[in-house]
Amino acid sequence: MFDARFSAEIQQRIDQKTKPLGALGQLESVAHQLALIQSQGRTQAVDKITIEQPTVLVFAGDHGIAEEGVSIAPSAVTQQMVLNFLAGGAAVNCFCRANDVAIKVVDCGILLPVEQDSPLLVKQRLGERTANIAVEPAMTKQQVEQGLALGQEVVEGVINQGCNLIMFGEMGIGNTSSAAALLAAATGEPVEHCVGYGTGVSTEQLEKKKRLVSQGVARCTTSEPVELLAELGGFEIVQMVGGFLAAAKLGIPVLVDGFIVTVAALLANQIDPRCRDYLIFAHQSHESGHRIALERLDAKPLLDLSMRLGEGTGAVLAVPMLKAAAEFYNNMASFAEAGVTV
Amino acid sequence: MFDARFSAEIQQRIDQKTKPLGALGQLESVAHQLALIQSQGRTQAVDKITIEQPTVLVFAGDHGIAEEGVSIAPSAVTQQMVLNFLAGGAAVNCFCRANDVAIKVVDCGILLPVEQDSPLLVKQRLGERTANIAVEPAMTKQQVEQGLALGQEVVEGVINQGCNLIMFGEMGIGNTSSAAALLAAATGEPVEHCVGYGTGVSTEQLEKKKRLVSQGVARCTTSEPVELLAELGGFEIVQMVGGFLAAAKLGIPVLVDGFIVTVAALLANQIDPRCRDYLIFAHQSHESGHRIALERLDAKPLLDLSMRLGEGTGAVLAVPMLKAAAEFYNNMASFAEAGVTV
Repeated sequence: MFDARFSAEIQQRIDQKTKPLGALGQLESVAHQLALIQSQGRTQAVDKITIEQPTVLVFAGDHGIAEEGVSIAPSAVTQQMVLNFLAGGAAVNCFCRANDVAIKVVDCGILLPVEQDSPLLVKQRLGERTANIAVEPAMTKQQVEQGLALGQEVVEGVINQGCNLIMFGEMGIGNTSSAAALLAAATGEPVEHCVGYGTGVSTEQLEKKKRLVSQGVARCTTSEPVELLAELGGFEIVQMVGGFLAAAKLGIPVLVDGFIVTVAALLANQIDPRCRDYLIFAHQSHESGHRIALERLDAKPLLDLSMRLGEGTGAVLAVPMLKAAAEFYNNMASFAEAGVTV
Repeated sequence: MFDARFSAEIQQRIDQKTKPLGALGQLESVAHQLALIQSQGRTQAVDKITIEQPTVLVFAGDHGIAEEGVSIAPSAVTQQMVLNFLAGGAAVNCFCRANDVAIKVVDCGILLPVEQDSPLLVKQRLGERTANIAVEPAMTKQQVEQGLALGQEVVEGVINQGCNLIMFGEMGIGNTSSAAALLAAATGEPVEHCVGYGTGVSTEQLEKKKRLVSQGVARCTTSEPVELLAELGGFEIVQMVGGFLAAAKLGIPVLVDGFIVTVAALLANQIDPRCRDYLIFAHQSHESGHRIALERLDAKPLLDLSMRLGEGTGAVLAVPMLKAAAEFYNNMASFAEAGVTV
């Protein structure tokens, strides 16, 4: 169980800083949450928040539904972008360099595998791509179980090497369709509210995407997360769900990126509600389903920069906010220390 | 004149990066603006954006209207907070450390001057505090002219030492009253829309604040900025206006903090509309007048973290967004470079 015993002590520490009560807004909430997470299992609240080896894992997978033309690009682009990540040329790489964040890329099952080896690449493929969720189940329940285990494993590995702030990103042509279907099936929200423009499809493609996603959702007779993942999931989404479960088990906060990652977080939370205490939300995507998923998780992201790229870009951009929150929690003067007489 | 000749070339460079068109949202606008600013006077668009010695100047001044009890703290706190800045204990210091930003504090006229010398402190006092704007002009026109010159001077000094990204912050008990009065008088907006809770006054204090600000605004028979500054200004606001004028003259972008700094930007822009091209807006304050000032400047800030502290905290927090924008403009792969075939 998450231990909230030190909550008042942490809040008091924040309230004694030289500023009006609450004047640092969401940074205060983040500092409070990080301090509470890092105080688990201790006999008193931490007086320093640490951020060690922040790392983004970009989970990549391909989707059978992409054959239907519901994306702006073909599945081959997933591999090309994975190679771009490995070469350091993508947006997420730029933001990692700017913010001193490490990156790993996880091949969860992309159509065209990468031949080369790279210290940044983890190969744990569940297949070559999912089946087309518009017409049949994405994968078997066995593949889901395997994917959850592999996702847990890779996250445990990174944490065991000293990372105490983790982020998930994703790459996979067609994966907003899978995420929208999972969101609709898991929450009962109408499909048309859950499906959006992804990285920028046309209005006709959007209508088609809604129709195909509806077909998939109509097959589901349960809201049990593992069964939904088998029916509608993506290989990268399944492994992220496993990753969320591992982070919560090990007591490490996850900085949550945009729409697809938030849907994975929602499913992880349905499997184990202890996940929620470890989630910090980075970026409000304009993808229409994101708002629904955030509401279900009672979450307000730190940033809203009108981005719609995925890759973990929103999460990596929010890392400086966490560092700023830690710095004020750790080193900002109290009224008494500074001799300020408010 | 600001030269927008390279705008299309810069946009094309951004559009060839490995991402869907526009997918980096506001970071794309910021990269475009920074590249355009740094291309002034050149024969082609820059291929690298540089961010050198980012510096925040915290302008401090005291206000006669504070005697009326329109703030949560007495004027003595302005000095205490200046000492806190010099000792590195305030929120803005924490954010400067987290984001590698230099800080200087400018005493523009605080009630209780600081005795000590400090390499961080610039003393250029226009007086001990302004007169009470509810009953009489804040200062003489001569003081305004002097303040504009001093503000220009301090900003020119910082820029001449190699800073190419500057921020202004402010500290001054009572200065939201002065800023609200200036905003109302400069724009003709009703006083009740311009006055807000500041750092957190009570509802009764708010009513009193509105009444006193209205009295000051009612005296004004002009919207000429220098006359308005004499009637309703603060010493720190006047010097910031001078600072904005200097930055535009030298072609250096200013990352604009919250309500009070934005009002100073608005007045600077009324004096010299060339200022606008150099303004990047950092944080949406919840102070009610801020939205009005931003609309007048056609501005959408990068961050909205529900902060209401001043000091330049919002601006300093946005620096990593500019660094991320520069990094993607400088080093993100193009479709051709990465072999991505969208």
